[in-house]
Amino acid sequence: MHERRGFLRSLMGLSAAAWAAPVVGASATAAAQGSTGAPNRKLGVALVGLGSLSEHQIAPALASKTQHCKLTGLVSGHPDKAKAWAKQYGVPEANVYDYQSFDRIKDNPDIDIVYVVLPNGMHAEYTIRAAQAGKHVLCEKPMAVSVRECDQMIAACKAAGRQLAIAYRLHFEPNNLELVRLAREKVFGAVKVIEAAAGFRIGDPNQWRLDKKLAGGGSLMDIGIYALQAARYIAGEEPVSVSAQTTTTDPVKFKPGVDESVLFSLKFPGGIIANCASSYATGLNRFRAGAERGWFEVSPALNYVGIKGRAADQSNAIKDFDFAPVDHFAAEMDDFASCILSGKPTRVPGEEGRRDVRIMTAIYQSAATNKTITL
Amino acid sequence: MHERRGFLRSLMGLSAAAWAAPVVGASATAAAQGSTGAPNRKLGVALVGLGSLSEHQIAPALASKTQHCKLTGLVSGHPDKAKAWAKQYGVPEANVYDYQSFDRIKDNPDIDIVYVVLPNGMHAEYTIRAAQAGKHVLCEKPMAVSVRECDQMIAACKAAGRQLAIAYRLHFEPNNLELVRLAREKVFGAVKVIEAAAGFRIGDPNQWRLDKKLAGGGSLMDIGIYALQAARYIAGEEPVSVSAQTTTTDPVKFKPGVDESVLFSLKFPGGIIANCASSYATGLNRFRAGAERGWFEVSPALNYVGIKGRAADQSNAIKDFDFAPVDHFAAEMDDFASCILSGKPTRVPGEEGRRDVRIMTAIYQSAATNKTITL
Repeated sequence: MHERRGFLRSLMGLSAAAWAAPVVGASATAAAQGSTGAPNRKLGVALVGLGSLSEHQIAPALASKTQHCKLTGLVSGHPDKAKAWAKQYGVPEANVYDYQSFDRIKDNPDIDIVYVVLPNGMHAEYTIRAAQAGKHVLCEKPMAVSVRECDQMIAACKAAGRQLAIAYRLHFEPNNLELVRLAREKVFGAVKVIEAAAGFRIGDPNQWRLDKKLAGGGSLMDIGIYALQAARYIAGEEPVSVSAQTTTTDPVKFKPGVDESVLFSLKFPGGIIANCASSYATGLNRFRAGAERGWFEVSPALNYVGIKGRAADQSNAIKDFDFAPVDHFAAEMDDFASCILSGKPTRVPGEEGRRDVRIMTAIYQSAATNKTITL
Repeated sequence: MHERRGFLRSLMGLSAAAWAAPVVGASATAAAQGSTGAPNRKLGVALVGLGSLSEHQIAPALASKTQHCKLTGLVSGHPDKAKAWAKQYGVPEANVYDYQSFDRIKDNPDIDIVYVVLPNGMHAEYTIRAAQAGKHVLCEKPMAVSVRECDQMIAACKAAGRQLAIAYRLHFEPNNLELVRLAREKVFGAVKVIEAAAGFRIGDPNQWRLDKKLAGGGSLMDIGIYALQAARYIAGEEPVSVSAQTTTTDPVKFKPGVDESVLFSLKFPGGIIANCASSYATGLNRFRAGAERGWFEVSPALNYVGIKGRAADQSNAIKDFDFAPVDHFAAEMDDFASCILSGKPTRVPGEEGRRDVRIMTAIYQSAATNKTITL
């Protein structure tokens, strides 16, 4: 491990201190403590939507991994499930809501943050209702199913004086952050071509992800958004044009408006181009930057655990990155809590979520019209 | 090595015999011997253009690696160079031509095949002149700089009753052939998304590859064509539409009509889509197929030596391919010689070269018009 770090340090001509990975936990802690000057209190998080992601990732992170927030509320349409969770996680029964009683959350001082983990088509409504209840909102990606909804969500949070963050967990993952650093510092010269692909083979044909109304689209909205994000954070700019093609090989599973696979290319103002792929038909899991004097990539790029990165200079001698793993969800929630405690803006605000929704809309438009769309 | 082969055999449910790599040398030998029923004679090859590729790859292959052909003629605009080569390779001085005397090759029975290794813009003229001189023609890729030229080349060879092959060396490379087999036999289920990228950072700004008249385009014509080829041979179909974007970050090196990088996507009638990248700005070197129940790739994909492949099933346990290396140029020349000796058609005829030129023309058209082009 130390040898590898040594390699990268010398490769990059940086001191050990300068090279240190931008681990979110540490800086967030400093920010939170620095701003309040008082002992930290843990902010209370209410989860809205107790599906698989909440069950397997978010609730466990809040139970044992977060430093600046904890699970204090549950919102579900399934009373039995909510009751069982309340017992398991020590959430008072008074802090359990259903979708009808949800707005009463405004009277509950145990809850500072509402984390919206619902199907995409419900993000806007619950974000807006949470803001109107005076809560800060962390909303799963994609932010919403239209730019108009994004605007309404941003406006609602602004009107309520509350922060809004989109749960882009890879902004807190050190290997992905290393891609950004290698690009921004031009360690291998200027980036020229980005390749970003994200996909998996989807199972159950009856799940909400394949329902246009709830999902707002297909693979792109759910998994391809990671490729879009990667292209944008590696490039460090906003694309000026997008060109796309979609395909469907299983018309039973993939109804109109729900893409099976999408290929899209993005052109950035500085000349970088990105070739991206999104799929519900096959596994895709790599973000790569080809630069003037080498390349760097993460693959697997977006797993919850096990992300690995590597880089090579002109001699094509490949060297692995070596970062201590972080829990993505704990890191993103801790960062948001720290931002709230310190009054600092989040790195993943609603405006960032809106950018992706706008570009995804253009991707679908390009595929539908067979034209490159100028953004 | 044997363990890996064992893995793949069992993975694919094939017997050792069925799994054996389609090594061209062996079958070509059989074909040549079978058709003539007589002891093989080696066909004579004249090289037209004594640049780097001829010097470092083709002439050495003819000197010591080919079984069915040998170097018997040289065509060059540099008399001193040709004379030195003639001496080095034991080519009679009477078999050395310049571009003016080239047509006299028709009277030379030592020469059966003309291998055109000139800049792209000269392929058509020398292919047609060679055919008119009664010689079979092997022409470097890209076949030509326009579909019209391709048609003229095909017509000239047909009129002369001579075979025309395009030097697609990866059609004779066992790792690339394994991609084709894995796709065609659906070893991991149907292929869904192909990714193919080919590029290198080009040096000398004054070389013919950056001259529109001689190159007919930029990176796409020279290196991106490998990605296009890979997409087509993995898909096993002809694309029905193409969408593309180009970029230029160095307008001094890359003049109008000479692309620096191109991204293009291809849609195939069976539903496969391919995301392809071509670049003179950065290294790109991978062909990958994402299938229903796994994936397979070669990377590096197009080096003269050192191509490596791997595959993974649904558990994502990655296993390497393991094929004995072949000399791509010896294999392609031996196959062509065998086809001529046996009267069998080449697997890489002019019609195959024409398909790529047609699609590359559409790629440039898509990028220029910002529209998806229906093929």
